[in-house]
Amino acid sequence: MKATMLYGPNDVRFEECPEPKIMKATDAIIEVVAACVCGSDLWPYRGIQKITEPMPMGHEYCGIVKEIGADVKNIQVGQFVIGSFFASDNTCFVCEHGYQSACEQTEFVGGAQAPLLRVPLADGTLVATPAVPEAEMIPDLLAASDVLGTGWYAAVAANVQPNSTVVVVGDGAVGLLGILSAKQMGATKIIAMSRHEARQKLAVEFGATDIVTERGDEGVKRILELTNGHGADSVLECVGTQESMMQAIHAARQSGYVGYVGVPHGVDLNGEELFFEHVHLHGGPAPVRQFLPELIDLIWNKKIQPGKVFDLTLPLERVAEAYQVMDERRAIKVLLQP
Amino acid sequence: MKATMLYGPNDVRFEECPEPKIMKATDAIIEVVAACVCGSDLWPYRGIQKITEPMPMGHEYCGIVKEIGADVKNIQVGQFVIGSFFASDNTCFVCEHGYQSACEQTEFVGGAQAPLLRVPLADGTLVATPAVPEAEMIPDLLAASDVLGTGWYAAVAANVQPNSTVVVVGDGAVGLLGILSAKQMGATKIIAMSRHEARQKLAVEFGATDIVTERGDEGVKRILELTNGHGADSVLECVGTQESMMQAIHAARQSGYVGYVGVPHGVDLNGEELFFEHVHLHGGPAPVRQFLPELIDLIWNKKIQPGKVFDLTLPLERVAEAYQVMDERRAIKVLLQP
Repeated sequence: MKATMLYGPNDVRFEECPEPKIMKATDAIIEVVAACVCGSDLWPYRGIQKITEPMPMGHEYCGIVKEIGADVKNIQVGQFVIGSFFASDNTCFVCEHGYQSACEQTEFVGGAQAPLLRVPLADGTLVATPAVPEAEMIPDLLAASDVLGTGWYAAVAANVQPNSTVVVVGDGAVGLLGILSAKQMGATKIIAMSRHEARQKLAVEFGATDIVTERGDEGVKRILELTNGHGADSVLECVGTQESMMQAIHAARQSGYVGYVGVPHGVDLNGEELFFEHVHLHGGPAPVRQFLPELIDLIWNKKIQPGKVFDLTLPLERVAEAYQVMDERRAIKVLLQP
Repeated sequence: MKATMLYGPNDVRFEECPEPKIMKATDAIIEVVAACVCGSDLWPYRGIQKITEPMPMGHEYCGIVKEIGADVKNIQVGQFVIGSFFASDNTCFVCEHGYQSACEQTEFVGGAQAPLLRVPLADGTLVATPAVPEAEMIPDLLAASDVLGTGWYAAVAANVQPNSTVVVVGDGAVGLLGILSAKQMGATKIIAMSRHEARQKLAVEFGATDIVTERGDEGVKRILELTNGHGADSVLECVGTQESMMQAIHAARQSGYVGYVGVPHGVDLNGEELFFEHVHLHGGPAPVRQFLPELIDLIWNKKIQPGKVFDLTLPLERVAEAYQVMDERRAIKVLLQP
């Protein structure tokens, strides 16, 4: 089969690779129906995260189960399934606490930008939909695999409550779906920080009530103006830079909550500053698996349409182009069809 | 009157000072019945926190109301009262969220190591006991003013739950009362990190089930051994150094809670490390006022005896000696009687 490999900065190749096989009795092989390019794929693509050897790319996926290992009990061949980027047994101590992304047996699921994908720990990792979905629902279900689950977790980590005030830092797909999540959890004032017109529009469609275009201290000043000088109850940090993190912390009210899901790159937090900000800080790699049943249910019942973040669809063989347009921010998120 | 002034490192003087007076209509003057030396007083005493001019010392107090300003309504002359180190109106947006230590009108209450003390925002700051207490209860009530309230907040910030496993980093008065608080909140396994025999004894008396004498990575290793390799549900950080903070973060289980109340000195947190630890982090100057009614009630009904942390009582004029024995860790906490 042909699949996606990253050789180095700006060097994505769609090339002949061996087909994945069942390696352990707990594995499944799925036929990928849709995959996509993640904001985090851009870190190595841009050379910010170094790679030492060609890397199979893609960790967001949904598709049809083609084959299962001998020990797989919950998942059946022919089912339409969604999984997260971290495989999880869903039974260990950490999974029981709802943090499947740190499962004691966890394994990163890579190589989803391909026609076939091996998913380890299939019983714990994959969640089947009630039936094989119609084509129009595929983007929504694919979003649940990572960006929706991560935005949702940001809102949970930021303790979003009904009638609360929320700020979302970052207008990538995760930030935008953080807005959708906050809206779904009952927040009444949702301030999106974005200076990009198409993203602002989607932010409003997902539930943003205010847009702040300023960044850094100026951005924080605007947030304070919009919150009677107090700051927000909850702030979702969906970028991962020093500036965005400090913006998030300063945008929260005293004793407010910051949920951070942007993978930190060069972020250092000063203990004393954090202490006197009195914020609650929680984040990390999103335990998407925890939320998948609930999210699939919301999508299946057409309560949410997270697939709107995909503003470009390309056939898988044009994957290099998908990276390029996302790198140049010409698309929010590109869906790839094998 | 004679009161306590710090002139510089190791230079505590008990000297003639002007008596405090009502300056605002919301002030009260109290006759201090008992005061004490705080671990945080040792930062400037040791020269780690620089001071530029002589500083009136002491911020933990209880006593009898001597005089009230024209606008004071809730507090009456003759009442026995306890207050916290941060005066608070108890009505503003921040106070309503339970974070009186960041009250919009807050003012630090300094100069409590003296016979008389001016307390700003008396109605919001002071809480009266049901009656004037017997002498034997004074140490318990004094503890509520800071160290108990701060240890309690550490346990709240660390989300201590019934039947949970708790680690307490720091065996000063705050850490020891963090143990008492965790016990009161129903924790069943409470691991105290201490290498000081007298403090270990009190830790056990307050509810510690295990003692770990190792520090740093070795200490974390012991904690993991004691928690089936998982780490603790809740960790109370009651020191404020880089080592203690990292020890706390690493001692928590994935998705565990760290409540930090040790004022950070030179603490820097690496964003990426924090991200992959998945911990909940919350702390800051304790909003003691939030907890005072509940704590006074527990003390009044003899459910807890936090005053045991005072292992030395001195007359106020020997305050310099009090600093010295605490600096040398010859006493856990010194009670001062004017």
